[in-house]
Amino acid sequence: MELSKRQQKIIEIVKEKGPITGELIAEHLNLTRATLRPDLAILTMSGFLEARPRVGYYYAGKTRDQLFAQRIRQMKVKDYKAVPVVMTEEASVYEAICNMFLEDVGTLYIVREGAILSGVCSRKDLLKSSMGKQDLNAVPVSVVMTRMPNIVTCFPEESLFDAASKIIQYQVDSLPVVKPAEKDSDQLEVVGRITKTTITKAFVELGEGRETV
Amino acid sequence: MELSKRQQKIIEIVKEKGPITGELIAEHLNLTRATLRPDLAILTMSGFLEARPRVGYYYAGKTRDQLFAQRIRQMKVKDYKAVPVVMTEEASVYEAICNMFLEDVGTLYIVREGAILSGVCSRKDLLKSSMGKQDLNAVPVSVVMTRMPNIVTCFPEESLFDAASKIIQYQVDSLPVVKPAEKDSDQLEVVGRITKTTITKAFVELGEGRETV
Repeated sequence: MELSKRQQKIIEIVKEKGPITGELIAEHLNLTRATLRPDLAILTMSGFLEARPRVGYYYAGKTRDQLFAQRIRQMKVKDYKAVPVVMTEEASVYEAICNMFLEDVGTLYIVREGAILSGVCSRKDLLKSSMGKQDLNAVPVSVVMTRMPNIVTCFPEESLFDAASKIIQYQVDSLPVVKPAEKDSDQLEVVGRITKTTITKAFVELGEGRETV
Repeated sequence: MELSKRQQKIIEIVKEKGPITGELIAEHLNLTRATLRPDLAILTMSGFLEARPRVGYYYAGKTRDQLFAQRIRQMKVKDYKAVPVVMTEEASVYEAICNMFLEDVGTLYIVREGAILSGVCSRKDLLKSSMGKQDLNAVPVSVVMTRMPNIVTCFPEESLFDAASKIIQYQVDSLPVVKPAEKDSDQLEVVGRITKTTITKAFVELGEGRETV
């Protein structure tokens, strides 16, 4: 929403001097209380200011933003992760492309025995290899995938906010959700995936007001 | 956060009877006010309940979610849209794939003179066509694209929430941001794009508390 110059000035005054009464704000602006009434009503209804009887107006915007931020950071990866779609290193690029269409996902995770993460294969990797003249049945997916340890991952207990930040920072479409493997804690076992779709769904849920922490 | 049985019971009581004093809550539970003090402190600090002097406790959770939803719905497409990457119908599939890598986007918009939207070409469309035996230089992008009017779009004045909802509902990666063309208002002119990346970035901004309406 667009604020008028006078409304912005009122916010400045309340930020600096709040809690402050309407009369005092009017005095600061050399206006009457009656002139300010519509502005104060708008600013209060839209949540920039809050009013308490016998106390006056105080600035609510910043606190509200921080509350929202805090709330978003409480959302956990484990509560939003989707089922991972995995293949083995021996699969061909052709099989990977078919699987991607079949499962309708943008990224495949390539695993070894015990669901140990070994690589990530994106639509871009597959598109690049399909442009060449090779026989796609003859090329193993392990040749075109991004390989460990060059893979950005996340953990079930991490916040969804952290996962989304990594997706943006590293410019990837998805993050494998992993945990240390039971047999060898240096290896990572794939237990889920977080994608831009996951984050978009979470955003929609927040906008519907149906997300509950 | 995990609530104890007693804390959940307190929330139920406050939901039903709030505003209610701590003494009355204690009475309902056959406990002393002193026993309940830590629970009430936890519920207040975590935002489930609010307390007002001489009034008592009332339930804050629902109101907070609705405030949050309202705030998200104030975010507009025009304030978040990215620059669209466009090609003409005459471009080949090969050129489209190259352009997609060059511009690092997931979707290309295909336009006629005056930036009039004629089709949308996704990574999936290109991947599908690159699997065949055809010469990719000989196939025009207009053969593999999704064509108007089967394209989901959004307008600059729409909310980002509506755009995100369409992305999920129609299972697409991006929405062209359009406006009626000046010369012929039945045609749509492309002025931007909203993608899952856009929404993920907005989510990160909200979590950082730096989004300001």
